[in-house]
Amino acid sequence: VDSRTDLEDAADRLGLPAVLKTRHGGYDGRGQAVLRTAAHLDAAWSALGGVPLILEELVPFDRELSVLAVRGVDGTVACWPLVENQHRDGILRVSRAPAPHVSAETSEAAQRIASALLTDLDHVGVLAVELFEVGGRLLANELAPRVHNSGHWTIEGAVTSQFENHVRAVLALPLGETGGRGVSAMVNCIGALPDASSVLAITGAHLHDYGKEPRPGRKLGHVTIIADSDAELDARLAQLPVR
Amino acid sequence: VDSRTDLEDAADRLGLPAVLKTRHGGYDGRGQAVLRTAAHLDAAWSALGGVPLILEELVPFDRELSVLAVRGVDGTVACWPLVENQHRDGILRVSRAPAPHVSAETSEAAQRIASALLTDLDHVGVLAVELFEVGGRLLANELAPRVHNSGHWTIEGAVTSQFENHVRAVLALPLGETGGRGVSAMVNCIGALPDASSVLAITGAHLHDYGKEPRPGRKLGHVTIIADSDAELDARLAQLPVR
Repeated sequence: VDSRTDLEDAADRLGLPAVLKTRHGGYDGRGQAVLRTAAHLDAAWSALGGVPLILEELVPFDRELSVLAVRGVDGTVACWPLVENQHRDGILRVSRAPAPHVSAETSEAAQRIASALLTDLDHVGVLAVELFEVGGRLLANELAPRVHNSGHWTIEGAVTSQFENHVRAVLALPLGETGGRGVSAMVNCIGALPDASSVLAITGAHLHDYGKEPRPGRKLGHVTIIADSDAELDARLAQLPVR
Repeated sequence: VDSRTDLEDAADRLGLPAVLKTRHGGYDGRGQAVLRTAAHLDAAWSALGGVPLILEELVPFDRELSVLAVRGVDGTVACWPLVENQHRDGILRVSRAPAPHVSAETSEAAQRIASALLTDLDHVGVLAVELFEVGGRLLANELAPRVHNSGHWTIEGAVTSQFENHVRAVLALPLGETGGRGVSAMVNCIGALPDASSVLAITGAHLHDYGKEPRPGRKLGHVTIIADSDAELDARLAQLPVR
């Protein structure tokens, strides 16, 4: 979509609702507009027009998942347990791993997607694939050829973190085991950091402060909570002063 | 022991074998001499004399243990699982946690020792107590009022590491859980670092490189291996190119 006319044509072909996105520089919901009716086209064009755009069908997904995977110089691929992600206002809020209620088929499909992409792209290092689960099917939404926010839980929640394995991969060292250690949830701190005492009073909680200046919508840190079961994790998450 | 005569008197009173130590600055076996017979006194005095010394009875221990504990500003105390330590040439080589074959009584005694010391000293932060196990009894050998080499396994092997809990303590934040996650072994890299590929090919192994210049007897890094059982840990340790 390079012009107002292109946008009209694309909306006709795809139908609405659809999502208009910039082709470069978008993140955390920035550079996106949802077109629900034809009346939204003008406002979306005013907001985003002038840079190269793309129009995509809006997918009415059941939930968002992501798969983190890593590939070594020798072509070895390893995947971490599938992650369930909750976004709000276009920004990732909570990642949970392993994603609850995932069938073996879905889990294997996600690993096949990540593995095929890593191999086809001849990528070395970590790759994150954001997925929509729609009626039991997986649709790839976005690729991040790097360590990813939805993999931060691996620091405490996996045998080897995404950061350690990325470094192992690019240094041509053997990859570490990507299995989970218990169950984990990662909660982003957006715009403000929570009271550290309240967070750290929760059993299994770890606070990561990025040392950034607070600004609305900015990711300033995250909290990871580990537990031995989903029920224990839910109980601990319920104590958290941020959501 | 401040003079050659003091040394003679002290050796007479304690009996031999005994250990002559400098009162300040000793570490990794430096500033120590073992006196097995009266013939060793001259050499030991030549090597160490001239600074304040102390003579101690040599304890024929069954094994060396250590207990890592942390105390918060509010007086809360938490202990990590008891550690078994193997030294060679006065330098710590391997720490294993939880220490195998420890009775509940021994474990509780170690925690009582650490807890009493922390409270009596009004210490805030991590304290390590090195212990000799002698015929089922524990004797305190040395105190380290800080994070300690025998606690490095806690980075991967405990819910909260000694480093995180030390920072939490001195910042008056709630202490994190000190329970172990599986079983762990920490192996020091002395004088040289092992080949990273060989280390990282071992499942559950993590290599810590301190970025120091190699020198004989210098601790340049450590390897931590985690596992689900003592047998699995033994099998993984057997693959390690350093000991």
